[in-house]
Amino acid sequence: MSRCLVLQSEVQSFIERCMIAVGTKVSHARALADVLVEGDRRGHYSHGLNRMDMYVKEIQTGICSKDGEPIIEKETVATALVDGCNLLGPVVGNFCMDLAIKKAKEVGIGWIVARGSNHYGIAGYYSMQALKEDMIGMSYTNTSPLVVPTRAKECTLGTNPISVAAPANDGDNFVLDMATSAVALGKIELHHRRGDIIPEGWGCDSGGKLSTDPGKVLSGGGLVPIGGCEATGGYKGFGLGLMVEVFCGMLAGSQYSRHIRTWKFTERTADLGQCFVAINPECFAPGFKDRMSDLLSLHRNLEPAELGVPVMAPGDPERKNIRKCEDLGGIPYHINVIDHMNGVARSVGVSPLLPANRLIAN
Amino acid sequence: MSRCLVLQSEVQSFIERCMIAVGTKVSHARALADVLVEGDRRGHYSHGLNRMDMYVKEIQTGICSKDGEPIIEKETVATALVDGCNLLGPVVGNFCMDLAIKKAKEVGIGWIVARGSNHYGIAGYYSMQALKEDMIGMSYTNTSPLVVPTRAKECTLGTNPISVAAPANDGDNFVLDMATSAVALGKIELHHRRGDIIPEGWGCDSGGKLSTDPGKVLSGGGLVPIGGCEATGGYKGFGLGLMVEVFCGMLAGSQYSRHIRTWKFTERTADLGQCFVAINPECFAPGFKDRMSDLLSLHRNLEPAELGVPVMAPGDPERKNIRKCEDLGGIPYHINVIDHMNGVARSVGVSPLLPANRLIAN
Repeated sequence: MSRCLVLQSEVQSFIERCMIAVGTKVSHARALADVLVEGDRRGHYSHGLNRMDMYVKEIQTGICSKDGEPIIEKETVATALVDGCNLLGPVVGNFCMDLAIKKAKEVGIGWIVARGSNHYGIAGYYSMQALKEDMIGMSYTNTSPLVVPTRAKECTLGTNPISVAAPANDGDNFVLDMATSAVALGKIELHHRRGDIIPEGWGCDSGGKLSTDPGKVLSGGGLVPIGGCEATGGYKGFGLGLMVEVFCGMLAGSQYSRHIRTWKFTERTADLGQCFVAINPECFAPGFKDRMSDLLSLHRNLEPAELGVPVMAPGDPERKNIRKCEDLGGIPYHINVIDHMNGVARSVGVSPLLPANRLIAN
Repeated sequence: MSRCLVLQSEVQSFIERCMIAVGTKVSHARALADVLVEGDRRGHYSHGLNRMDMYVKEIQTGICSKDGEPIIEKETVATALVDGCNLLGPVVGNFCMDLAIKKAKEVGIGWIVARGSNHYGIAGYYSMQALKEDMIGMSYTNTSPLVVPTRAKECTLGTNPISVAAPANDGDNFVLDMATSAVALGKIELHHRRGDIIPEGWGCDSGGKLSTDPGKVLSGGGLVPIGGCEATGGYKGFGLGLMVEVFCGMLAGSQYSRHIRTWKFTERTADLGQCFVAINPECFAPGFKDRMSDLLSLHRNLEPAELGVPVMAPGDPERKNIRKCEDLGGIPYHINVIDHMNGVARSVGVSPLLPANRLIAN
C-alpha cells in the first residue's frame, strides 16, 4: 500500500479551488479547507480531504447555501441563538465560536447554540479556537442517526461528538474530541473492506444484538453507544448522546434524533443543531494553566501497564500525528484518495491535487 | 433476605437527628438529609442513608465544618467562584445551584465552581433543582481516586460523575446522572461479597489488566473508565473523567486527581472541586419542552430488542424506583442497614430508626 505526500498548503489550496469552482464564497471555501486540513493533520482522515466531495456535492446541488453569513437571532450578554442560514458548517462554527469567546471575555462564559447548520468537520477544531485566548472551549453537534440506543434495534442518534479543549503552560493543552458512539462508522467500514471481524462492543445487528460481523452492523444494524452493551454501561453512552442532543437540537430548534436526514442522503437540508462554548478561567481560581500542566504530566508520566505503550492525555495521539506530518513535510494520503479527488477536480474543472515529489512506503 | 420499610419522613428525621446530635447546624443537617433521602428514593442506595455514618464521622472528628455558610469569592453576571468553607457537600451544592439559577434567570446561564467542598451525594440532586424553574441543570464533582486511566495501572481519577437534567412537558424530564467509570465501586463490592465474578469491562487488576475477579479489582486494582479497555473505547471514558476534572479541580483550585485524599481515609479535609450550571431555554429556540417530550417518547416507544425489556430514557429507572417506594408507602432497607444505622444512633445518643409496621420479602 503506497502513500503519496502532499504539501499542506496544496491540500488547502486544492479544497479551496474545488469549492470555489462550484460557486462557494471565497472566505467560506477557506474556512472549510482550514477545518478539513486540520482534520487530516490530526489524523482524523475520515473528517478531512476524504470528505470534500460531500461538501462539493452539497454546494453543487444547492442543498447547502454558498453565500450569506450567519445571523444572531436572540442574545444576552452570555448566550446567543444563531441561525446558520444553511451555510457550510465551518462558517457557522467559526461565527459561533468567535461570539462565544467575545462573550467569555466580557462575562466569563459564552454559550452559543446554532440551528440551520451543516456538517462542520472535527468538533475539536472549534473548541481549540478558545485555546488561542487561554480559554476553555467546547463544541457539540448532532448528526444523522447511526447509533442504536441501549435495548433498542433502530438507529435514533448520531455519533453526536463532544469536544472540550483546555490550555496548559507553554502551548500544551488538553483536547478531548470524541464521538459518543464506541467507535466511528469509518472503523467498521475499514474492517469490513479488509474482511476482518470487529471487537465485541463496537456495533450491533438488525436485532439490536452486539455483533462482531461488520457486514451485519453496516446492513440494518448500527453503532452502539460508548460502553457497549447494557451490562458494561452502554446506557451511559446512550445518555451522553442524548445530552449532546439537549445542547444541540433541543436548544436550537433544529432537526434532531431520528428527524435528521439519513447519513449520505442529501435530498433535503441538514438543519443540524450545534453548540459552542467558551469559558474564561480568569473568572475562577488563579493558576489554571499550572494545574492543567500538572494534570497532564501526572498522567503522561504514569508507569504504563505494558512496557513501551505510554499513557496518553486526550490530544496526545493527534499531537503525534501532527509531528509526523511535520517530519514528513506534508500530509500522506493513500493513492486511491488522490485519484478519487482528482476525479472530483476534473468534474468541477480545476487543476488536480499536486503530490510532493515522493511516495511513502507505509 | 428480608427488608424493612421505613417512612420517608422517618429516614429524613433520623438523618437530621444524628447529624444535629454531633453538632451540625440544623439547616445543614436538613440539606444533607434531603439529598440522602432522594438518593435512596431514586434507588441509588450507595449514596443514601447507607453513607450517613461517613458524614457523622466527618462532623464528629471536625474534618468537615459544622457551621458557617459558603462565600462568593469572585463573580460576573454569569459566573462565580465559591469557597465552600469545608462545609457539607449539600450545603455547598445548594448554595451554588441557587446562584446558578439566579444568574441563568438574568443572563441565560450561570456557571458556578466551588472549591473547599465535600461529598455531595447524588450529582442528580443538584442538576434537578433547575427543573423547578424549567431550566437545564448540570452538576459535576471530582472524587477520591478509584479509576485507572487507559494504559495505566494506578488509580488517578475519581468516579467523577456528570449530571445533566432537562425539563419536558407535564413534569416529565431527562435526568442523566452517571459516574464516568464503567460501574460504581459498590457494584464490584456486592459481587465480591456474593462470590460472583464480574463482567469484563468493569475493573482491572494491579497490573492494569481487565479482570473478572472482583477481589483483584478491590485489592490493588481499580475501576476502569466507561468504555472498558482501549479497543472498546475506554480512553473516551478516561477523557470524560478528565473533563470533569477540568470543570471542577482545574477551575476551582481545589484538590484534584491523585492529590485528593484516599477513599474512606478522612485524616485530612477533602477540598473537593465541584461545578454547577443552569441554562435558561427561554434564551434559545421556543418550544424546548415540546421537543424534550418528543425526544423522550420517541425513545421510550422504540420497539425493544428483547420482548418485555423496554427502552428507557435517562431518569426512567429512578422514576420506577420512586413509584415503587410510593406504592410501598416508604423506603425499603435491608435489615443489616437498619441495624448498622441504629448502632450509629446509639453512639451519638439519639432514638433509633423506626421501621414501619411491616417486613417486605426481598
